[in-house]
Amino acid sequence: MPVLLASESAPTLYELLVLLKKQSGLDWTLAEPDAQTQAQQLKICGIGSLGQAGPSELSFLSNPKLRDQLHHTQAAAVFVQADDLAAMQQPAQFIAVVCDSPYFAYALVAQWFEQHRLQRLPQGIHPTAVIHPSAVIADGVHIGPYAVLEAQAQIGPGCRIDAGCYVGKAVQIGADTHLYPRAVLYRDTVVGARCIIHSGVVLGADGFGFAPHPDQSGQWVKIAQLGNVQIGNDVEIGANTTIDRGALDATIVHDGVKLDNQIMVGHNVSIGAHTAVAACVGIAGSTHIGARCIIGGAAMISGHLSIADDVQISGGTAITSSINQSSRYTGVYPYQQHKQWQRNAAVISQLSTLRKRVRDLERTLADQSVNTEK
Amino acid sequence: MPVLLASESAPTLYELLVLLKKQSGLDWTLAEPDAQTQAQQLKICGIGSLGQAGPSELSFLSNPKLRDQLHHTQAAAVFVQADDLAAMQQPAQFIAVVCDSPYFAYALVAQWFEQHRLQRLPQGIHPTAVIHPSAVIADGVHIGPYAVLEAQAQIGPGCRIDAGCYVGKAVQIGADTHLYPRAVLYRDTVVGARCIIHSGVVLGADGFGFAPHPDQSGQWVKIAQLGNVQIGNDVEIGANTTIDRGALDATIVHDGVKLDNQIMVGHNVSIGAHTAVAACVGIAGSTHIGARCIIGGAAMISGHLSIADDVQISGGTAITSSINQSSRYTGVYPYQQHKQWQRNAAVISQLSTLRKRVRDLERTLADQSVNTEK
Amino acid sequence: MPVLLASESAPTLYELLVLLKKQSGLDWTLAEPDAQTQAQQLKICGIGSLGQAGPSELSFLSNPKLRDQLHHTQAAAVFVQADDLAAMQQPAQFIAVVCDSPYFAYALVAQWFEQHRLQRLPQGIHPTAVIHPSAVIADGVHIGPYAVLEAQAQIGPGCRIDAGCYVGKAVQIGADTHLYPRAVLYRDTVVGARCIIHSGVVLGADGFGFAPHPDQSGQWVKIAQLGNVQIGNDVEIGANTTIDRGALDATIVHDGVKLDNQIMVGHNVSIGAHTAVAACVGIAGSTHIGARCIIGGAAMISGHLSIADDVQISGGTAITSSINQSSRYTGVYPYQQHKQWQRNAAVISQLSTLRKRVRDLERTLADQSVNTEK
Repeated sequence: MPVLLASESAPTLYELLVLLKKQSGLDWTLAEPDAQTQAQQLKICGIGSLGQAGPSELSFLSNPKLRDQLHHTQAAAVFVQADDLAAMQQPAQFIAVVCDSPYFAYALVAQWFEQHRLQRLPQGIHPTAVIHPSAVIADGVHIGPYAVLEAQAQIGPGCRIDAGCYVGKAVQIGADTHLYPRAVLYRDTVVGARCIIHSGVVLGADGFGFAPHPDQSGQWVKIAQLGNVQIGNDVEIGANTTIDRGALDATIVHDGVKLDNQIMVGHNVSIGAHTAVAACVGIAGSTHIGARCIIGGAAMISGHLSIADDVQISGGTAITSSINQSSRYTGVYPYQQHKQWQRNAAVISQLSTLRKRVRDLERTLADQSVNTEK
Repeated sequence: MPVLLASESAPTLYELLVLLKKQSGLDWTLAEPDAQTQAQQLKICGIGSLGQAGPSELSFLSNPKLRDQLHHTQAAAVFVQADDLAAMQQPAQFIAVVCDSPYFAYALVAQWFEQHRLQRLPQGIHPTAVIHPSAVIADGVHIGPYAVLEAQAQIGPGCRIDAGCYVGKAVQIGADTHLYPRAVLYRDTVVGARCIIHSGVVLGADGFGFAPHPDQSGQWVKIAQLGNVQIGNDVEIGANTTIDRGALDATIVHDGVKLDNQIMVGHNVSIGAHTAVAACVGIAGSTHIGARCIIGGAAMISGHLSIADDVQISGGTAITSSINQSSRYTGVYPYQQHKQWQRNAAVISQLSTLRKRVRDLERTLADQSVNTEK
Repeated sequence: MPVLLASESAPTLYELLVLLKKQSGLDWTLAEPDAQTQAQQLKICGIGSLGQAGPSELSFLSNPKLRDQLHHTQAAAVFVQADDLAAMQQPAQFIAVVCDSPYFAYALVAQWFEQHRLQRLPQGIHPTAVIHPSAVIADGVHIGPYAVLEAQAQIGPGCRIDAGCYVGKAVQIGADTHLYPRAVLYRDTVVGARCIIHSGVVLGADGFGFAPHPDQSGQWVKIAQLGNVQIGNDVEIGANTTIDRGALDATIVHDGVKLDNQIMVGHNVSIGAHTAVAACVGIAGSTHIGARCIIGGAAMISGHLSIADDVQISGGTAITSSINQSSRYTGVYPYQQHKQWQRNAAVISQLSTLRKRVRDLERTLADQSVNTEK
């Protein structure tokens, strides 16, 4: 992995731990009584998995199945749950930082390194950015080369608009939102605060709306898409994901939603708060998805449906009717070696016939039984 | 939704209706004898669904199931079919504009607002556009900041080439076509008139063609892709859709085709006129799709197939052989709660065995029956 | 197809054949003893299929099913296997160039035309490119308009970085690699030599990593993605494909891998050498795919799996568990006319019940048989 920090600018383990407790409420203790002195001297230059972390790096054990790796890790310090540490069969060769959720601790440390990196990025508005005079740019905004901001765009404080982004007319972006290079926001799009929008994302392109021409020529008459896209706070949108503008109203993505790459969100969809959607999912128009759902990769969700809160959908599943009950839903054809699949697929085409044959057999046997009883 | 028009620049209902009759042949009548005077005074500032339209907006009823909403809508005027209006149980509180196809009327009104918006966009060639001296730009063309047009590109009258578009060498674009920001057209691409090409679209990238190296090392030898992409008139291509150039000949999209977002069209494919393809569909190389087909979202179509005219393919369906007959085709594994799915999926793996068991039972019963008859 | 070469700059057939033997070891003979003189006079202006090639073009027969086309082709010369030529029922009207693999010969000729085109493209660094002073650009590099290269980027000799590309901080690119317009490489990405990266590709965007917040509010805590993307030599990446950076380590694509358009490669994935992946495939995080695999379009591969070398996966198949054995695997629901599908899909939901009914019948018959024997 890339080097994160040179030793001279790295924090000590103790500084880092104190900061995480203060900023994020992370509760931790050092397993060994004398570890505090060590922690005050140890510089933390990066973070890695147990197998990969080096002697100036921090690591973590979040999956009990990997307990054995504690014996061999080169990491200088490890976030670990008390029982995993207690199960070790030899003394730890690292500083053990005991906490309830090592995975959460890892997330906080990784964020710390990322913030450190972001703070060192170039700041200011590049002279090549084309910004309409009526656009309103708050303080502390970075705008990269060749970005284009149209009339009446509003950019909140602390935003980063990277190279080549396109921010359409009357787009509003909240504070501290980051647009990676070449993101495109069509006119009227609204984005909240602290969002992360990756390269190739397109927000607010026309929804797919056409009326058949009454002359029955087969021609389609375009339904101009007059609504917009509204994104809440703390939303992340992965590379090349597209969210279409509403036909008349808005397409809405609520606070805290996380969208992976190459997702397609149709017009007039709404996605409830904190729902997470993995890559390559398609959500067709006017479907409403509840809060805290988890949708697996490449799932396909038809239009005009309603999905309840806290629903889980397995990857690759096609959802074709509304779901009212929180549960996990799956519909994936099981794969097999090709020849075996061919045999089974052939039966599928005649399944309803097969069921009828079973019914007939049942009746015949029942009749025999009646005859026997006579 | 965004405000469409301020009252002072809005047309009256009557002006709008007269225009739609003249321009598009829309046949309408006002239900009430005295409504013409009202229609001449009523300013129409926007259009909305029955539930959302406000008192200066137009609406429409296209789905008879929503008839009840006629009683509560705030809309100033509503396009409605005669029988839906007649079925109302109380006098309409809006100006009823009776027509045969309210959905078509809605499409025309929405288009009117969109045209009004487009006409007010900035015009002209931005000084930062990089245009090769041999490119031929017709009159009335808009070219946005940082667009790049290579040698021998030809742009028809009235086109809009938005910010950051890339138009490759010898690309030809017909009149009044609109490229949204950051569309990319590789060399030799031909696009007709009145097309709409959204952001992130890539036309003419290399098709996926490789020959196994005869040295059997596993290496692939690239087949350079020497053909091009040809798009007809009145085609719309959604955000981040990709259409690859032909290997030797052309990949062809005929007139009036509508492609949604994130569609992949392989090399040497042809798509017949007025076919509509929903998002996330993949069409593999050398497949020919007929005219007026409707292909649902996330359908997958294998290569080297032929699909007849007027075929409908349900969303999520994998088409693996040619279709000669116009009909609707579906192949989607039905989803269920995960545990139930697991039970059924396990049976699928042994379906051909199950069929054999049924056959054996049938034979055994037949034998019994023969024995009994003896 | 576009005109490839004017006659005055075209090579003779003989020049081309001698070159291909010298450069690529292509073994060929002319079928007719007197053909060499003809081959020394014939100018080759392009290459086409047997049905499309014109009288100054070369063609090839690679599929024996198309043998009949040899009798009607207008091509001036044809690459053909000896037995296909021998099977002709009339004398060839073209110069027959006999070789073992006409498809390989076609690939070499197409590459020759492509190289000829590439060598005539504009060269040099466009004055509008924004290049950080610490970036290192080797000799013979082309950088197009509005490209942006950040600090410490390293570009190998002979690379083409087309218009509007974004090359992030500390990105390294090997010799002779070609980035088509608007490709985006996030910081720290490493790309080998002779790669082709098409428009809309995004390498190194954040992987999809979140920890549930321990406060159980449903909020997700971002796992900052600190790894990178590493691409080997001779890799091709199709339009709008995305490859995410690793969480802590690298996402790795090995030498000779060919990725089609709109593929999604999750964080920490590795793809073995010479594996080919067709369009629209999704590969979820931390999955390892072997060498020389062939993965069909729109296949979906779950995360944390291991796929052996030389595995073939059919298009549209969802792979949900590791594969240890080289073979072809398929899992696609067979499509049918919609009504027939509805009937069969309904049975699927009760398949485990159906199996139980068969078992019961078997037992009943077995009991009868026991009773009869008594």
